[in-house]
Amino acid sequence: MPRSNNTILLSPEELSLRLSHVVRLMKDDSIDSALINDNANIYYLTGRIIDGYLLLNSRSSSMWAFVRRPSDLEGSTTFIIRKPEDIPAILDEHNIQLGEKIGLERDNSSWSTIHRLSKVFEDREICNIDHILMAARSVKTPAEIKLIANSGIRQTEVYRKIPSLYQPGMTDLDLQIEIERQLRLAGCLGQFRIAGDSMELFMANILVGDNADNPSPYDFAMGGHGAHPSLPVGADGTVIKRGHTVMVDANGNFTGYMTDMTRVFTLGEIPEMARRAHDCSRKICHTIAEIARPGVEAKYLYEKAIEIVRDENLEDYFMGHRQHAGFIGHGVGIQINEHPVIAPRSRDILREGNVIALEPKFVIPGTGAVGIENTYVVTADSPMQCLTTAPEEILSL
Amino acid sequence: MPRSNNTILLSPEELSLRLSHVVRLMKDDSIDSALINDNANIYYLTGRIIDGYLLLNSRSSSMWAFVRRPSDLEGSTTFIIRKPEDIPAILDEHNIQLGEKIGLERDNSSWSTIHRLSKVFEDREICNIDHILMAARSVKTPAEIKLIANSGIRQTEVYRKIPSLYQPGMTDLDLQIEIERQLRLAGCLGQFRIAGDSMELFMANILVGDNADNPSPYDFAMGGHGAHPSLPVGADGTVIKRGHTVMVDANGNFTGYMTDMTRVFTLGEIPEMARRAHDCSRKICHTIAEIARPGVEAKYLYEKAIEIVRDENLEDYFMGHRQHAGFIGHGVGIQINEHPVIAPRSRDILREGNVIALEPKFVIPGTGAVGIENTYVVTADSPMQCLTTAPEEILSL
Repeated sequence: MPRSNNTILLSPEELSLRLSHVVRLMKDDSIDSALINDNANIYYLTGRIIDGYLLLNSRSSSMWAFVRRPSDLEGSTTFIIRKPEDIPAILDEHNIQLGEKIGLERDNSSWSTIHRLSKVFEDREICNIDHILMAARSVKTPAEIKLIANSGIRQTEVYRKIPSLYQPGMTDLDLQIEIERQLRLAGCLGQFRIAGDSMELFMANILVGDNADNPSPYDFAMGGHGAHPSLPVGADGTVIKRGHTVMVDANGNFTGYMTDMTRVFTLGEIPEMARRAHDCSRKICHTIAEIARPGVEAKYLYEKAIEIVRDENLEDYFMGHRQHAGFIGHGVGIQINEHPVIAPRSRDILREGNVIALEPKFVIPGTGAVGIENTYVVTADSPMQCLTTAPEEILSL
Repeated sequence: MPRSNNTILLSPEELSLRLSHVVRLMKDDSIDSALINDNANIYYLTGRIIDGYLLLNSRSSSMWAFVRRPSDLEGSTTFIIRKPEDIPAILDEHNIQLGEKIGLERDNSSWSTIHRLSKVFEDREICNIDHILMAARSVKTPAEIKLIANSGIRQTEVYRKIPSLYQPGMTDLDLQIEIERQLRLAGCLGQFRIAGDSMELFMANILVGDNADNPSPYDFAMGGHGAHPSLPVGADGTVIKRGHTVMVDANGNFTGYMTDMTRVFTLGEIPEMARRAHDCSRKICHTIAEIARPGVEAKYLYEKAIEIVRDENLEDYFMGHRQHAGFIGHGVGIQINEHPVIAPRSRDILREGNVIALEPKFVIPGTGAVGIENTYVVTADSPMQCLTTAPEEILSL
């Protein structure tokens, strides 16, 4: 029989917890109401994707849903609409007070969408709400951390299989296709949500040998030439040969929440410097995992990483060789590029419940990319907890 | 060795042809210049993805590139910048005249991006340019049609293998994973570009039995419950059983340009009505392919389809049963939802070089989805040419 899950899918307690994160930040900025339309934000606040709008009021800590599709969504605070212009009459009818200052998703919604919504609420003061949603979403609830941890366990199981997937003569793309299949068989959803419009990736960034040093237009930590000029990142058809490294950074979305993990594999021997750089990456991760506590500045973690890299005289190779990425870590959750950002000019301060992917990587010319990436949870008073536990050593294919 | 394709990748003739499409439409609207930032539009005008901006001037039919990454992009009309605020000084230095009216991508770029760019050009009149890029891109050049045709040939080869991929006991997801692998092995890029922010899909929409009738929040022709509430469309783990149809609508992006094709498979017998609806879909495609010529209104094609459906008394099942889609076809190219749109209120008029996916589909309760989808080119004076040539009959798995 056709199925219909025609309500909000979060438990009342979980919805209330997430809503309280957002409402507290709205109150700090004196924002009375917010209209939410972005899929990632809607998923955060409902546990599902709807075509429509969520209306949040900070004074009453309430949320209403104005839904175009699915048109059978139910609930006492759910209203079926055809277009956003239908909203004001419904508000009047149900005596819902918005207040004066209304936040819209100015960073995520198109100019045309915001222009249209601003007209719907033209007698109010309009401001941005995206930074508040990003800040709220950067502090994960225990239920969200469970979902991320579950993705980590399943992603780790697939990573353990990678050496068995290699066959002599394979290109990076051949290996990637087999990894993609194993990820999908293990329940990976495939979808890879990225905030903003400019970054694109399909399933994995797999870098073999010197392809790791090909710059990409996208703002990922690593580049790669890509298989086609329409998607210039990652694997490019390089045959995997002895003496090259194979860096695997593949999709960890098994639960609507992602983990981000990178591991390195190789055929035969690689130069001592490449091994030293790989160990340096592990040392950076372990050091940062120890010192990253609530209240620590994100930029301090970046500085600490650079300090370790300088001690090893590896600056020239850190975060790329021809082109260097400007960050070594990022929040991760519903999207791959959440807060906090671990970068030199980051203004983020760590909080309990942040989930951070650390990826201090190196590109060694003639060999390829080395280093690891792990996803960690910031805890109240212990070292960060690692959610991606595949072996960190460079493994032989 | 690391590679660098550090120029625009279109031939001068092809660039000139595409630019002339855009410039003609800009002149019609008295738009002097346009600043382009969207990946799909940048790919159309350069044959590659860059992080930066293209500046088009309609008076001189010229284009300049302002590029952040890759930072080694070369060419006499290419300038490396850090931020859009760097552009005016470069324009002054090179005596580049913009004119008064400047188009920005107001439908595709975020409000915050447009706000920032509007400040950079604050002494000019700002207008929207997205409808012009969409209109220009809807009329494909011969080179673009070759790329789309090439995708069609490769997608067709994979579709021919589908019956051999089925194993007894498979779910829709199991079959989808094997189809994904074959697509990737045949060179499918995976990436599935969709205009706008609200629609999401991973690789394929595969619908088995009554899952075809589960509504989705996304604006695709068909729905499906999906494997997870974070991506509610398509396959949901239904085991493929006798008497059900298996509708396969899978990614046809092999060249940066996509074809869109749907075929139906089955195990054992299906009701006569389902076969009749499938034949009706084929009849609609063939009839429309005959009558779709330059100058024909897109909405007339929709009306013709409805007429054929009514003659067969199949209205209740057309384009869904519980929830009906409001269109039967769409342009396709760099993105899956281009112009013209074949819908009752479409204002599009067909032009030579349009590439249109027609997908008149039916959902038969208890059986599943039937019907075909083909991608066609509108030619000057012949029937539309079909680019997706897998057998149209319902094939046994």
